[in-house]
Amino acid sequence: MEALFSLLKEYEQEMIDIRRHLHEHPELSYHEVYTPAYIAEYHQKLGHEVRTGVGGRGVVATLRGSKPGKTVALRADFDALAIQEENDIPYKSKVDGVMHACGHDGHTATLLVLAKALNKLQADIEGNIVFIHQFAEELSPGGAIAMIEDGCLEGVDVIFGTHLWATEPVGNIMINAGPLMAAADQFDITIQGKGGHGSEPHMTKDAIMIGAQFITNVQQIVSRRVNPLHPAVVSVCNFVAQNPFNVIADTVKLSGTARTFHDEARDLIEKEIGNVIQASCQMVGASYDYRFKRGYPAVVNHKEETDFIIKHAEQIEEVQQVRICDPIMGGEDFAYYLQHVKGAFFFTGAMDPNWEEVYPHHHPKFNIDERSLLIAAKTLGTASLNYLKNESVEIKQESLINE
Amino acid sequence: MEALFSLLKEYEQEMIDIRRHLHEHPELSYHEVYTPAYIAEYHQKLGHEVRTGVGGRGVVATLRGSKPGKTVALRADFDALAIQEENDIPYKSKVDGVMHACGHDGHTATLLVLAKALNKLQADIEGNIVFIHQFAEELSPGGAIAMIEDGCLEGVDVIFGTHLWATEPVGNIMINAGPLMAAADQFDITIQGKGGHGSEPHMTKDAIMIGAQFITNVQQIVSRRVNPLHPAVVSVCNFVAQNPFNVIADTVKLSGTARTFHDEARDLIEKEIGNVIQASCQMVGASYDYRFKRGYPAVVNHKEETDFIIKHAEQIEEVQQVRICDPIMGGEDFAYYLQHVKGAFFFTGAMDPNWEEVYPHHHPKFNIDERSLLIAAKTLGTASLNYLKNESVEIKQESLINE
Amino acid sequence: MEALFSLLKEYEQEMIDIRRHLHEHPELSYHEVYTPAYIAEYHQKLGHEVRTGVGGRGVVATLRGSKPGKTVALRADFDALAIQEENDIPYKSKVDGVMHACGHDGHTATLLVLAKALNKLQADIEGNIVFIHQFAEELSPGGAIAMIEDGCLEGVDVIFGTHLWATEPVGNIMINAGPLMAAADQFDITIQGKGGHGSEPHMTKDAIMIGAQFITNVQQIVSRRVNPLHPAVVSVCNFVAQNPFNVIADTVKLSGTARTFHDEARDLIEKEIGNVIQASCQMVGASYDYRFKRGYPAVVNHKEETDFIIKHAEQIEEVQQVRICDPIMGGEDFAYYLQHVKGAFFFTGAMDPNWEEVYPHHHPKFNIDERSLLIAAKTLGTASLNYLKNESVEIKQESLINE
Amino acid sequence: MEALFSLLKEYEQEMIDIRRHLHEHPELSYHEVYTPAYIAEYHQKLGHEVRTGVGGRGVVATLRGSKPGKTVALRADFDALAIQEENDIPYKSKVDGVMHACGHDGHTATLLVLAKALNKLQADIEGNIVFIHQFAEELSPGGAIAMIEDGCLEGVDVIFGTHLWATEPVGNIMINAGPLMAAADQFDITIQGKGGHGSEPHMTKDAIMIGAQFITNVQQIVSRRVNPLHPAVVSVCNFVAQNPFNVIADTVKLSGTARTFHDEARDLIEKEIGNVIQASCQMVGASYDYRFKRGYPAVVNHKEETDFIIKHAEQIEEVQQVRICDPIMGGEDFAYYLQHVKGAFFFTGAMDPNWEEVYPHHHPKFNIDERSLLIAAKTLGTASLNYLKNESVEIKQESLINE
Repeated sequence: MEALFSLLKEYEQEMIDIRRHLHEHPELSYHEVYTPAYIAEYHQKLGHEVRTGVGGRGVVATLRGSKPGKTVALRADFDALAIQEENDIPYKSKVDGVMHACGHDGHTATLLVLAKALNKLQADIEGNIVFIHQFAEELSPGGAIAMIEDGCLEGVDVIFGTHLWATEPVGNIMINAGPLMAAADQFDITIQGKGGHGSEPHMTKDAIMIGAQFITNVQQIVSRRVNPLHPAVVSVCNFVAQNPFNVIADTVKLSGTARTFHDEARDLIEKEIGNVIQASCQMVGASYDYRFKRGYPAVVNHKEETDFIIKHAEQIEEVQQVRICDPIMGGEDFAYYLQHVKGAFFFTGAMDPNWEEVYPHHHPKFNIDERSLLIAAKTLGTASLNYLKNESVEIKQESLINE
Repeated sequence: MEALFSLLKEYEQEMIDIRRHLHEHPELSYHEVYTPAYIAEYHQKLGHEVRTGVGGRGVVATLRGSKPGKTVALRADFDALAIQEENDIPYKSKVDGVMHACGHDGHTATLLVLAKALNKLQADIEGNIVFIHQFAEELSPGGAIAMIEDGCLEGVDVIFGTHLWATEPVGNIMINAGPLMAAADQFDITIQGKGGHGSEPHMTKDAIMIGAQFITNVQQIVSRRVNPLHPAVVSVCNFVAQNPFNVIADTVKLSGTARTFHDEARDLIEKEIGNVIQASCQMVGASYDYRFKRGYPAVVNHKEETDFIIKHAEQIEEVQQVRICDPIMGGEDFAYYLQHVKGAFFFTGAMDPNWEEVYPHHHPKFNIDERSLLIAAKTLGTASLNYLKNESVEIKQESLINE
Repeated sequence: MEALFSLLKEYEQEMIDIRRHLHEHPELSYHEVYTPAYIAEYHQKLGHEVRTGVGGRGVVATLRGSKPGKTVALRADFDALAIQEENDIPYKSKVDGVMHACGHDGHTATLLVLAKALNKLQADIEGNIVFIHQFAEELSPGGAIAMIEDGCLEGVDVIFGTHLWATEPVGNIMINAGPLMAAADQFDITIQGKGGHGSEPHMTKDAIMIGAQFITNVQQIVSRRVNPLHPAVVSVCNFVAQNPFNVIADTVKLSGTARTFHDEARDLIEKEIGNVIQASCQMVGASYDYRFKRGYPAVVNHKEETDFIIKHAEQIEEVQQVRICDPIMGGEDFAYYLQHVKGAFFFTGAMDPNWEEVYPHHHPKFNIDERSLLIAAKTLGTASLNYLKNESVEIKQESLINE
Repeated sequence: MEALFSLLKEYEQEMIDIRRHLHEHPELSYHEVYTPAYIAEYHQKLGHEVRTGVGGRGVVATLRGSKPGKTVALRADFDALAIQEENDIPYKSKVDGVMHACGHDGHTATLLVLAKALNKLQADIEGNIVFIHQFAEELSPGGAIAMIEDGCLEGVDVIFGTHLWATEPVGNIMINAGPLMAAADQFDITIQGKGGHGSEPHMTKDAIMIGAQFITNVQQIVSRRVNPLHPAVVSVCNFVAQNPFNVIADTVKLSGTARTFHDEARDLIEKEIGNVIQASCQMVGASYDYRFKRGYPAVVNHKEETDFIIKHAEQIEEVQQVRICDPIMGGEDFAYYLQHVKGAFFFTGAMDPNWEEVYPHHHPKFNIDERSLLIAAKTLGTASLNYLKNESVEIKQESLINE
């Protein structure tokens, strides 16, 4: 890996420059034009096979090694968010109301420069490396599903990806076998009761009362129905019944989110919310409308590939610690890739420990410690090369975490 | 009563004319200027003693009989509502957004013309009749309390009053001894939890959850704590926590109304709502702000005076039925007069049975069958004259309904 | 009434003696043998027409006046309770575990001696007086319903009855038009969930959880569904799910009582409890068995007959006060008679104001102030004679309380 | 390992014989006399250092190798249960009402015979092997805590232990790094309300109502307060308020269990149950008694030692599969050892796949497939010997599961 690591070190400034350039030119999910063109041109200059418009706006580039072998895919997303940047930096977003507030600029810069370094090592590579540059990660249904349908995983044996993580110190890698990020779903309910005067509840079907009961009763889904070993959250976050103080509510609108890591829990929650709202309304003869909108599924890392990342990340000089982390309740459409091929996703710490204030992802003052780019590139790079060398995991049998 | 009844019959058209005139010139509660001036002038022309500005904007006129005796007070309110009239009638409100949508125009016309008729009979009257024209019945704290403080009940032995009732057929009188109209109070609660991400309930104090629990638990006030013989309603009518689907509520604002007929129940409810919100918040360590705003107390008719109204109303030709009615959950500041002197309040049916659609009080298309004016005048008049003739109730001992 | 009153005064000691005799020989509901025989013999000696075995164990005696006229019925019940008397009195119950702990001995003595007095006045009586001696008032379904079916009300125009009331001072009569005593019903529910280990709620249908929800949700029947003007109580009094601390309940048995004064509320409660248990179980897929057992209906006094009792009771020397009382939540099968004929039921105060401790009905130390017997006899007697004299109520139209 | 494995194979029948002998002579927790004597004698014959009465009734034997080195401890428990055996087997329990229904007979036989085999290899052993024979695993507070206090872990570097698992096929080993078995706690609550008549809820503090609210509100501990990544169960399993259908409950007794794997969740639940019962009672002014009795803490395997077991178990011929299992909600006082030294606990499959019916642990028909004894012995043996050879884990840094 010496060759790869020293190339990457050499190109570190270019990574930073590209990241800053992209940071100045953010584009919203499903509206990416400049970024994919920029990416395609970069790969074309390296002589890679490039497919554009994959699944809509994605770019897929392939580096073929000197001999046949396995195929490893690396994925980076490149969309930005509808946030007005509040950072006072030279490379501040030049687009009003749009900002790379989740680090996808860094993901892209990392992958491009890693591609350049790997390209230099082409003669030593047996097999292929596919660079998947994904659009629209931030907005459901997300670009991953469309790119997969458009063939981006064809022939791929394994996939790796990373997310820069601005609340974890630079130098740390966080990963976990099994569920790593949650399935994040939304539900919306309208309760249609029958309004009336506050002094005559018996003439009404009090929608607020029904809603209160629903919320009270819905707690049991997590506390009694879901397998206690399956982490799950059902939160009613929005509840609106705006009326004069003496007019009983005709209608309540409420919405919330469900988070799970297991399909069984996810399906159960969708069904059980339906049961609870159905029973709560039926008790009074009210009606309702219930919608459960699935977001991304859970990112579930494969055990061997996770161990593989751990093993190789630990060899990197700049890595202080590979930390087995708790799953994170946020969602990622990297999940879809892992439903098709083996692989692992990890977090690359991107917090400068000297920062006085740390702003979370999606914050107008979000930023990353750019030293994280080199670490991300090294980790993805060493994993790829080692994988192609067939140095894959030797654990005798399929052992599943939390099966 | 022949003399009184035939005078009133003779003046019926004047009553209607005055009512229509006032209907065209409605004035909002606490903003009455023209109406009290009109009333004062009418009484002055009759030669009655007139006090204006009583308690603010009230008018009190006194007719002194030819001999000393008891003093009976009759009360009519004269304010209008902030409603845009939608009736297509020649005497439609000429004031945009203001309307006599509760019949106070009729109450005033009735009382003025009744005063004129009684004035003609002055020679036969032993004692005095006080005409209390009240402002601001529609808006708490209401004119009654101010007028009483300003002496309008001084020397008064008994008080009678009526409300035209647009959902009861003309020809019917509705009354009941004991509680007739409810105490109508308002409560407002702000729950201050601690917001957060929908996927991390354990980092929050979920204000919607607390609110739902409050509503669920508050049901027990009526079902378990209030004496089951004391009618009571506690309705949460307004509940607002507007958030994205995945952001746990920091704050909930809710409000509602309590209705009671007994002071014991009213006091209990105020206290118990406090207990429930206190416990619901404390369970999670959240804080809250709770306000209980008392509206008018219950209108509680005195037994003998109620029987007196029943007895004499039954003698009136135009009265088809004197109906003992259920208490009505609405409020009236006539309640305050009955806390100071004996008396009774009743409803005078004002619905034309031939109407195709009946609009309730406070509706933009509210109207009354004007035949009700004569009935109201006769009932109040006969009660007054008979009372002054000392023909009051002889029931041996004080018997109280629902004491 | 002078004649009647002085006869009753003369016979007062006999009333007391009979009461004490019956007190010594109490008989359980549906097991009365000696008492009806004693009653029948007493009436036979007076020369009254006597029917025994009416509806099972009832006795009906008829005194025919000297001229035809209306028929008034007077009812007294004569069963005792399964209570071991703890009074230290000369006439203490001689039957182990059985006691006249509700005053029915007094009711019977009153009616017998009143019959004797009225018999003396037979020459002056126009019409008939029917003495209904009822068995089994204490135990549902009660004797009233059977005696009515067996014709005890045939030809009867009006019925009166009283209950001695040991917590009200002697000298007071309590009565109220409309609902006087409640309908008292019972419900029993078995929730069949699916038990399991306490650590695996998701494998179970937790019957305790369902029961808790049922109880929480059932509060809304009284607080939101029943007309707030209709007094109502739903109490879950019994809840049993006995399990080790770590075994989730398979089954819960619960039972409770509902009290109402209006058929509408009663029917509603029966239906709504069903709705709530149905929804609570359905939410989890559990099953249940629900039984609603109706006890006696509400005792609803007729307005004119109530006024009639009030008017005449007030003429009695020993009556200090006729008090309009709140309805009482206990039940009485006198209710059934009032569903067939006009009439009124009232309470005759039987508490000695000098008692240091007052024991409620059904208490092992229950007793009555025997002065109450004379008052009860006078009230029932004067009501009967005046009724037969056609001195009934002249209120022009049917006015119903709480219609 | 060849030498060890062939010795164990040679001694397999002895293991079975000892297991059956112990099976015939089961002893209840804290009442073990014969078993520890038997164990002590066995080790003494082998020439091991033996301490008896450790922590009360435990036995600790030490095998010292030929050279100094590390010390590994192996633990087996030896108590039985108060269950009447229903198996029809030649070696059925000879003690009425007492049975080895959890496989501790097998644990002990395994460890004794393993000790014999290791003893034969003494010349090759660098370091020491400590055999911890624990009494009273089945009954809190358990023997482990007392034996540790009495020094059984002194000088110990690592500890291993296994549980035969009758619902997992023989040939499988189940293990997981991090939480493997739950902390199992008990709570008991008495709610002291104020009873009364079912028709007068307002005169009472309805203990059933409070209990229902408690159960409803307590759901939020798991659903809203505990970190969703920390598995937790709070089950109310017992709820008793036995009353006539019309008497409101004075008192409710309820109890339940809490299961957790993280101390943070465990502490939180103890505190939050207190908050909920406190608020639920305070709402009505009732009082309560709340006890939270801690059972064993969670068994939390150390990552490296777990990997160590996995690695060596996979080398055993009879092992079909090393399965990473979900944590199990049951408890084990092996937990305490792991709080003091590094180590790992695993399950050894003991179900014969050909059984028609499988009975769970603690069932009167519980049994084990005795082939599991050899597998358990080999796994513990190979782990011990390899550990002493210093072939321990080389993972560079401390990585913690679910820290």
